[in-house]
Amino acid sequence: MAKELKNLTKRSEDYSKWYNELVVKADLAEQSDVRGCMVIKPYGYAIWERIQQDLDARFKATGVQNVQFPMLIPKSFLSKEAEHVEGFAKECAVVTHYRLKANETGDGVVVDPTAKLEEELIIRPTSETTIWNTYRKWIHSWRDLPLCCNQWCNVMRWEMRTRLFLRTSEFLWQEGHTAHATREEAVERTEQMLNVYADFAKEVMAMPVVRGVKSETERFAGALDTYTIEAMMQDGKALQSGTSHFLGQNFGKAFNVQFVDKNNQLEYAWATSWGVSTRLMGALVMTHSDDNGLVLPPRLAPIQVVIVPIYKGDEELNAFNEKLGALAARLEARGVRVKYDNADNKRPGFKFADYELKGVPVRLVMGGRDLENGTIELMRRDTLEKETRTFDGIEDYVVNLLQEIQDNIYNKAKTYLDEHIYPCDNYEEFKERIKEGGFFLCPWDGTEETEAQIKAETQATIRCVPFGYSQDNLGVDMVSGKPAKCRVLIARSY
Amino acid sequence: MAKELKNLTKRSEDYSKWYNELVVKADLAEQSDVRGCMVIKPYGYAIWERIQQDLDARFKATGVQNVQFPMLIPKSFLSKEAEHVEGFAKECAVVTHYRLKANETGDGVVVDPTAKLEEELIIRPTSETTIWNTYRKWIHSWRDLPLCCNQWCNVMRWEMRTRLFLRTSEFLWQEGHTAHATREEAVERTEQMLNVYADFAKEVMAMPVVRGVKSETERFAGALDTYTIEAMMQDGKALQSGTSHFLGQNFGKAFNVQFVDKNNQLEYAWATSWGVSTRLMGALVMTHSDDNGLVLPPRLAPIQVVIVPIYKGDEELNAFNEKLGALAARLEARGVRVKYDNADNKRPGFKFADYELKGVPVRLVMGGRDLENGTIELMRRDTLEKETRTFDGIEDYVVNLLQEIQDNIYNKAKTYLDEHIYPCDNYEEFKERIKEGGFFLCPWDGTEETEAQIKAETQATIRCVPFGYSQDNLGVDMVSGKPAKCRVLIARSY
Repeated sequence: MAKELKNLTKRSEDYSKWYNELVVKADLAEQSDVRGCMVIKPYGYAIWERIQQDLDARFKATGVQNVQFPMLIPKSFLSKEAEHVEGFAKECAVVTHYRLKANETGDGVVVDPTAKLEEELIIRPTSETTIWNTYRKWIHSWRDLPLCCNQWCNVMRWEMRTRLFLRTSEFLWQEGHTAHATREEAVERTEQMLNVYADFAKEVMAMPVVRGVKSETERFAGALDTYTIEAMMQDGKALQSGTSHFLGQNFGKAFNVQFVDKNNQLEYAWATSWGVSTRLMGALVMTHSDDNGLVLPPRLAPIQVVIVPIYKGDEELNAFNEKLGALAARLEARGVRVKYDNADNKRPGFKFADYELKGVPVRLVMGGRDLENGTIELMRRDTLEKETRTFDGIEDYVVNLLQEIQDNIYNKAKTYLDEHIYPCDNYEEFKERIKEGGFFLCPWDGTEETEAQIKAETQATIRCVPFGYSQDNLGVDMVSGKPAKCRVLIARSY
Repeated sequence: MAKELKNLTKRSEDYSKWYNELVVKADLAEQSDVRGCMVIKPYGYAIWERIQQDLDARFKATGVQNVQFPMLIPKSFLSKEAEHVEGFAKECAVVTHYRLKANETGDGVVVDPTAKLEEELIIRPTSETTIWNTYRKWIHSWRDLPLCCNQWCNVMRWEMRTRLFLRTSEFLWQEGHTAHATREEAVERTEQMLNVYADFAKEVMAMPVVRGVKSETERFAGALDTYTIEAMMQDGKALQSGTSHFLGQNFGKAFNVQFVDKNNQLEYAWATSWGVSTRLMGALVMTHSDDNGLVLPPRLAPIQVVIVPIYKGDEELNAFNEKLGALAARLEARGVRVKYDNADNKRPGFKFADYELKGVPVRLVMGGRDLENGTIELMRRDTLEKETRTFDGIEDYVVNLLQEIQDNIYNKAKTYLDEHIYPCDNYEEFKERIKEGGFFLCPWDGTEETEAQIKAETQATIRCVPFGYSQDNLGVDMVSGKPAKCRVLIARSY
């Protein structure tokens, strides 16, 4: 492992390769034998579980309830919302049969042609259609609203080029689907969930994001507005990390979900949907990690503190087990996730490299001399700084340090983001500088033509009209020279 | 709702109909528009989440880690274990294409024939094959063992006749898959997980079970031994509630998972797998509920205590809000899940019927006279007993009562189970008595012929060779008259 770790490609050499290697070497995930689908390994899944738990509590605090809808959707449902089918029909896994039978050659199994479905079923790429088809039965009166459901599930979008976590055919996500009596309330919910995502990214993932609204081209298929949080990876590219859609009455009309309002009038329900996925795992890796491996925010780290004794013989081991076992227990009692690693089948150097690779935020090491001196060596993963401290009271220091590391990696990422957002109104300058990455704030004339031209010529896209940035003194579009309608954030992206 | 509740079929009239109605009326689940697949509604899902959380903690306490494998399995994987394919190929959802396209008639979408998969993919009916195909890459040495993984996911088995929770084409479950260096360790893990299930059933679901081992006919396809927990429903039928399989080296050999043991010999890994599913929701309903609706064990109830004020006018409402809001807060501080329901758009009678239907364990009601007298009315759902108590200190009483209800419904179910287990060695008597339900302890000659004859003539099956029941003085098989090999538990089942 120590040797394998040395083989980790440096970010400066090939950022993309570094990422691919790190995800596998750190035991987060690997390719499965089904093209484009991944296996999320125990260490990776332990991080995803923490993401789920924290987000789930935030959703519930806003009045959302969890549900579970079928993974299969009748093909005809997709066609009911005109834009939606355009966006999702092209990349579907299609179930056409419901039985296999023994091959007549006696070798293996084949599809039983007599077990053909009357109507093909699609593995859900997203569940607006099936959920709104059911909401029709649940929603009759304004008293049934708002209806705020969420599900944690797997979805499938057939992707040709896949990368672990960032783009896989099957992925895990949550999808929230709410129904409201008024446009205003639906818009408010759309914004509320965007803020839940942004707060979570900041507070838990230590990942700063830019909030904004997508251009028409980049909207969710069937939405009137798509809100987004965009994070900046260490190579200056954007990663869309969560979206929240205002769907208007499109699905209410497509699935005939009507309710009697307070004035006794029949009205179509207003909709939102919003989701984040295992993509966040990719964002987490690319926001904080370094050439030595993962750097995990303490709030998500499966192991926050590892304690390693360096001992000779059973007597010294016994002394360490007593002293460090007690320290581990004291830390656990303070809510810290601790691993005491006294395994004798791996050398300390191997362990150090492995825990570095896995991004354990704090490492405590004690050797024979520390035992005599009443000291312990501490290393923090974010800065790789080592120091020797007094053993007594070390748990107070560690508890505070975990918060400090959480804050520090956020601040580091925030500084990086702020330093790589550039106002720019000169297209020639833009074309040159975009090669180095970064987010560019540029005046845009609001036309699809300009948007398409930028994409074709620079591989960069309009990420959003960002919130919190001035929309005054717009001037002219940097490409067309026509009067600008707004200032947008442009970047290359994952 | 109060009216609809009255329409709930009585158990004595038609137990099966009562169950089907109750699951829908209590908002646990409903049929979806995809044949055989259900929608788990918010109230039902909130119970399932508690089941998940509790079981998940128990698994982790035994050293199990969660993972996530793909939902799609290459068709050829299924054929690698000879018995496994027999058991699962017949009921698979088969993905044959990966794209839809616009219909040339301009109406809707059709399967794109050019997007045909080279090898069809199966939606997992269970994941032994895909997981063991990956374990080959993870397991090389005895140091990699034991490997204990679990996943919470959806699976699909095409069922012709379905019932909500009990038998659905798609269902949610957990599947644990462990690999071991020795047969003994694998058998031990198989038994350990059976005990985890049985303890969970008893302590959390308040559901007594019989533990045992399946006959060869009833084994999991590919297992050397299948252990089971069998619960008794109120109609005397058995419901298989969880299984744990000792798979020997069958999957190790089928997928060539070999490791170097401590003696430097190459050996195939030993396997177990074990699972429980949303079927447990059906077991929960049919173990405790009554003609008024659900009866939920407090440990699983989404709402443990509901507080309803009966008020006239705003002034009285304000007084209640203050007094009962504070009570709710005090109960919450003690870890109780409370709902304070002062909604004015539903009559108290409606609320009472609804919370009864939903199985809320404790109901507290306060009216104007209680306010004067410093009293509160309490009803417990399990016995439907009402009493008026002093308001002061009511929270202590309620906290204790929740535990008492948990114990009481377990004891009630345990008494029912014990009273309906009959030793029987006379087949004529058996044939008559099985019509009334119950578990029968009968001597069996161990042959498939006898097993088949009992099933054909009585629709009852051998549920298991039960643990904890005497295997002495076996006598002769009640059907064949041949010497008995063991005493088995026979029952009709879900």
